[in-house]
Amino acid sequence: MFSELQPLMAHPDLPSKQDTSQDDKREKDPVQPAPTNLQRAKARFLKGVSYFAGDMSIFAKWMEKQFFLLQLLDWVLRGAAQVMFVNNPLSGLIIFAGLILQNYWWALNGFVGTLFATISALILQQSRGAIAAGLYGYNGILVGLLMAVFSNKGNWYWWLLLPNVFMSMMCPIVSSALASINSRWDLPVFTLPFNILVCLHMVATGHYNHHFPQVLIQPRSELPNITWAEIDVAKLFMSVPVGIGQVYGCDNPWTGGIFIISLFISSPITCAHAVLGSAVGMVSGLALAAPFGDIYFGLWGYNCVLACIAIGGMFYALTWQVHLLAITCAFFCAYLGSAIANIMSSFGLPACTWPFCLSALTFLLITTGTKKIFKLPLAKVTFPEKNLGFYWKLKKQEKKEKAEKEKSESEEQQKAIEEEVILNEKEQLRMALERIEEGRAESEESEGENDETNEEDRAPGAERQETEEEDIRHNDLTSVTSIENV
Amino acid sequence: MFSELQPLMAHPDLPSKQDTSQDDKREKDPVQPAPTNLQRAKARFLKGVSYFAGDMSIFAKWMEKQFFLLQLLDWVLRGAAQVMFVNNPLSGLIIFAGLILQNYWWALNGFVGTLFATISALILQQSRGAIAAGLYGYNGILVGLLMAVFSNKGNWYWWLLLPNVFMSMMCPIVSSALASINSRWDLPVFTLPFNILVCLHMVATGHYNHHFPQVLIQPRSELPNITWAEIDVAKLFMSVPVGIGQVYGCDNPWTGGIFIISLFISSPITCAHAVLGSAVGMVSGLALAAPFGDIYFGLWGYNCVLACIAIGGMFYALTWQVHLLAITCAFFCAYLGSAIANIMSSFGLPACTWPFCLSALTFLLITTGTKKIFKLPLAKVTFPEKNLGFYWKLKKQEKKEKAEKEKSESEEQQKAIEEEVILNEKEQLRMALERIEEGRAESEESEGENDETNEEDRAPGAERQETEEEDIRHNDLTSVTSIENV
Amino acid sequence: MFSELQPLMAHPDLPSKQDTSQDDKREKDPVQPAPTNLQRAKARFLKGVSYFAGDMSIFAKWMEKQFFLLQLLDWVLRGAAQVMFVNNPLSGLIIFAGLILQNYWWALNGFVGTLFATISALILQQSRGAIAAGLYGYNGILVGLLMAVFSNKGNWYWWLLLPNVFMSMMCPIVSSALASINSRWDLPVFTLPFNILVCLHMVATGHYNHHFPQVLIQPRSELPNITWAEIDVAKLFMSVPVGIGQVYGCDNPWTGGIFIISLFISSPITCAHAVLGSAVGMVSGLALAAPFGDIYFGLWGYNCVLACIAIGGMFYALTWQVHLLAITCAFFCAYLGSAIANIMSSFGLPACTWPFCLSALTFLLITTGTKKIFKLPLAKVTFPEKNLGFYWKLKKQEKKEKAEKEKSESEEQQKAIEEEVILNEKEQLRMALERIEEGRAESEESEGENDETNEEDRAPGAERQETEEEDIRHNDLTSVTSIENV
Repeated sequence: MFSELQPLMAHPDLPSKQDTSQDDKREKDPVQPAPTNLQRAKARFLKGVSYFAGDMSIFAKWMEKQFFLLQLLDWVLRGAAQVMFVNNPLSGLIIFAGLILQNYWWALNGFVGTLFATISALILQQSRGAIAAGLYGYNGILVGLLMAVFSNKGNWYWWLLLPNVFMSMMCPIVSSALASINSRWDLPVFTLPFNILVCLHMVATGHYNHHFPQVLIQPRSELPNITWAEIDVAKLFMSVPVGIGQVYGCDNPWTGGIFIISLFISSPITCAHAVLGSAVGMVSGLALAAPFGDIYFGLWGYNCVLACIAIGGMFYALTWQVHLLAITCAFFCAYLGSAIANIMSSFGLPACTWPFCLSALTFLLITTGTKKIFKLPLAKVTFPEKNLGFYWKLKKQEKKEKAEKEKSESEEQQKAIEEEVILNEKEQLRMALERIEEGRAESEESEGENDETNEEDRAPGAERQETEEEDIRHNDLTSVTSIENV
Repeated sequence: MFSELQPLMAHPDLPSKQDTSQDDKREKDPVQPAPTNLQRAKARFLKGVSYFAGDMSIFAKWMEKQFFLLQLLDWVLRGAAQVMFVNNPLSGLIIFAGLILQNYWWALNGFVGTLFATISALILQQSRGAIAAGLYGYNGILVGLLMAVFSNKGNWYWWLLLPNVFMSMMCPIVSSALASINSRWDLPVFTLPFNILVCLHMVATGHYNHHFPQVLIQPRSELPNITWAEIDVAKLFMSVPVGIGQVYGCDNPWTGGIFIISLFISSPITCAHAVLGSAVGMVSGLALAAPFGDIYFGLWGYNCVLACIAIGGMFYALTWQVHLLAITCAFFCAYLGSAIANIMSSFGLPACTWPFCLSALTFLLITTGTKKIFKLPLAKVTFPEKNLGFYWKLKKQEKKEKAEKEKSESEEQQKAIEEEVILNEKEQLRMALERIEEGRAESEESEGENDETNEEDRAPGAERQETEEEDIRHNDLTSVTSIENV
Repeated sequence: MFSELQPLMAHPDLPSKQDTSQDDKREKDPVQPAPTNLQRAKARFLKGVSYFAGDMSIFAKWMEKQFFLLQLLDWVLRGAAQVMFVNNPLSGLIIFAGLILQNYWWALNGFVGTLFATISALILQQSRGAIAAGLYGYNGILVGLLMAVFSNKGNWYWWLLLPNVFMSMMCPIVSSALASINSRWDLPVFTLPFNILVCLHMVATGHYNHHFPQVLIQPRSELPNITWAEIDVAKLFMSVPVGIGQVYGCDNPWTGGIFIISLFISSPITCAHAVLGSAVGMVSGLALAAPFGDIYFGLWGYNCVLACIAIGGMFYALTWQVHLLAITCAFFCAYLGSAIANIMSSFGLPACTWPFCLSALTFLLITTGTKKIFKLPLAKVTFPEKNLGFYWKLKKQEKKEKAEKEKSESEEQQKAIEEEVILNEKEQLRMALERIEEGRAESEESEGENDETNEEDRAPGAERQETEEEDIRHNDLTSVTSIENV
């Protein structure tokens, strides 16, 4: 049932990784008899990096034996980072630092959201591996954060924790339900539970509610005149980190910068696509004549960031075709973002990450004839670098199999040719024998039987032989006795 | 194809029920040699109850042989009750009585809707069992009723019957189409066809239509101030039956009370969850600062009623975990109800039962590791009490199988130990024999053969024997003849 | 993966068609020894028609060997016609003529849209057969046309080509993604990609956008008074071809007339259902009190046209039940059209062909017990006439199989009766033999063995024989020797 949530788990991957490296070693050993100093240094460096980069699987394994509350903290931190598809507690810690830099109250709400979402998943007995990878926490942090961000009661309105806890605890339920549907197409649920639950809360209460009023969002009936002279290039460049910060609802560029660092620690490919996505969003905003304020505020960026990460190496193995696809997806996502923001504003709602979810799901549902766009099975998704390794391994294996197949085919052809030659020789002998036996008529019946079997044997090469038979008839006979042994 | 609609059918269940009871009897007979008077009275009472409670399967069987119009009436009555998941013509009759108490014209429209929906299902050759269980009628009655309730032309506007008949006849088509989709996840269609078709009619015509104008529904731009002093506790308590009445669009508390009775007749568990759901809806309304008028009018209750019934024992087997889940679902449904009502009002639409459908479907899609939350296969769903029986039977069977498995495992272990003992004895005898035969050398070859077979036989216990062999060698020989019989 | 797009391919059908016709000939030959002149003329006429009617599969085969740009033109023309489910380049050519008659700029945009959608499908390496059938082009032409139609910048605003090309190139991506979902229910994607992408573009930019402003569409808050005296019957009749023209966003009745001709060329059944659908839409508009202007403008017709074509013979085999279903679907589609137009106008959007897509998908998802409503497997869908041929062939084969089954059953019965007779005779002989052998007691054992085999042989008829045995005992014996041969 929960196979769709296993992908980002750290534990099951560990043994397979070790196996792989051992296999690789065994294969490599005869080739590389003695590693140079440089290679040794590189290996030592990579091993050092593996302790805190990627999905920190060694740390996760060590964590398994620790005190429960410590484990829970690990899961919460991983959950915080999973918003950006990063399964790394260190990144999560840095992200929380960024959130504190932005706003204490928001950070607290985010933490409460992650915590209760994880606890709810434990109560509902969801897959322990998925919980440990933070896959039940990331919707919680977003729900907590965004409910605080869009609350009209300002900071430190403690009653807000009540719907916050309720909605966070609903996250695993909605996640589980959506996963039942999406797993039919081997698709992840992304941040759909967050989108559903935050929109639910906001539209159920609304701006005029007495207990939980929301920020007033209204549809735009007119756009300000845009003059290119007014553009502020510094702010435009700043919109790239701000766009990344807006994934967590933060408009502080320093917070965005910290998030970039946290991404780089875990996976440079993810980090690069995040920056690229944010830039694409900015450009799309300019192309569609969006107000500069929105662009500076990062509203055009955050969906593209997520879409670009998801397509560019996370759920597809990164080739340059996939890279182009990721950029296309980011453009499509920006377009969609504008459309959804306009529609949602009629109901007083923000766009949330609906544009990212819908565009990424669309691009993951594509089927194509080319092998260069390879969608990883959901259970094998980890982080872009490792995904790439998986893809290369698969490709290598395919190549090997193909080579072996070709080899066996050519061998078979060779064999067939040889057999034909043997059959031709047999035929020659038979003919010679017949000529000899024309003289003496004894033992005819047994000879006839031999004839029949020969007739059957030569079936594959029969057509060619018939034309050759006449020539053969004039050949000489050397060893008649060999016929008896056929 | 229609397996998803079989669940509430009366007929196929009957024989299996009889079989079960017979099986139970056979099993019980040796335990209970003679029932006491009390037991006999209880059995007689239960038999009497079974004639009009539950799904009235005996009545349904008797009905099969009756005149077609009488059968149709049975189906229509069952359809009327199926809105509340009750497959019982008596409940249906009482519900119609409640509707007549509320409004003659509405009751007529409801009847026309149920009738034409059932007829349309017959024309489209849908599953006869599903039709007989009223599964094609309940959307019809809701379509008929609610089109009358929301019509702005007042009562006895006869032209309304035209779209009423058309929409009712579309019910089985939409039901069938939705079932094709939902059956992939083994989910029922609930009242989705009703929601789709009534919203369709209302939004297609709208408030300003000249032929079929609708009641004007507008989004709320401001909420009245709420002072807890103003609360009317009597009305608040009354809102519980009113909420149950609102399932059929009725605001009369007496009608709601009659509906409660009709539920109790068929299934007390359903009845209890209905009341509980309505109460949860009321509390949610207070928590989210809803205007008191809405709460008194039962608008916060009816979706929760349906959601609480559906989760609490109808589609899940009732355990206390499921009971808690049903209450959670009711709270979620109330939240969702407020959200959907706000969104739909932008289009001049009521919330209908969308919140119930969406929340119940979400909670039915959950997958969990615990066995205490057991979702019944859709084809086995009948009514909570019987569902519980099915669940207990399954559990009992599982337990039995487990016990048997354990028993057979322990027996196997016992057997293995015994075999080892026998083999040891054989070995001893063999050794003794060998020692005897050292004296006389005749008939050595046949002995050698016996040896070999012995070697093979003792394979399982071989390892231990090799260490014991030396001790055995010194043992005495008592009966050599027995070897021949081994 | 792309099996859902193969249906309308021309190539794979060709050989099977030839095979069929040869099979038919072979079967017919013995029956019709010499065709009359009339038959010969008819055959020649049908062959001539087949060159330009239907899906022009002979032309498609010839096209395969041509220059690539010529092939691309063929695909674009087929794509233009595929909007109406017509896989015919001649129809596509005529449709482009109709578009040019309407508006040069629109026609250009439509051409650009089709071209780039097809090119994008080639880049994404989609199924070549589907591309060749125009299945990736029809969304492109609609996207191109409607973006031009709804642009507020008027004709010849060249910048519009930029989003036009981008959106057209997104068509195959969205098509492929939707096909992944719809293929689970063996459903086509219809014009959903067009609906999604055009709505996306319109709502993302909106009326007040500086770069790509859209025509202002606002929800209707009041309807004009309708007096039947004001009705213009000529315009009402004209609304039928206008409705067909509105499929491509054209309000010129001549353009609509040209489209009717293009439909008739390929498939008269399609053409008839298109006209019927447009008429149903007009009637529905009158029934629901729509403003006459909308009806004259064809806004009530175009969705019904498409829905009526899709259900009436295209995806279901045309029987009279399916014909009635198609009319029902057209009425439902008109109702839905009004509803969706009202909802979409809140967001400044036109209804596009959402009503057609949703109603046709609903009617294709129906499951029913009757065999008269036969949904063709998607891979076998071509055009109504050929679909009908496929259905008849299938039905004929089924009948044949049934007849054969019945025949073999009756033969078996006959055989069983005969065997019984033989067994009876055997029994008589055995009895007679026994009586004879009472006298002489030799060779009893071998007789006993025979007895046993006889006992086994007569098993099937054993019961009856036992009652007959007594009569048989008094029968006379004539040929004892025959027993030895049994």
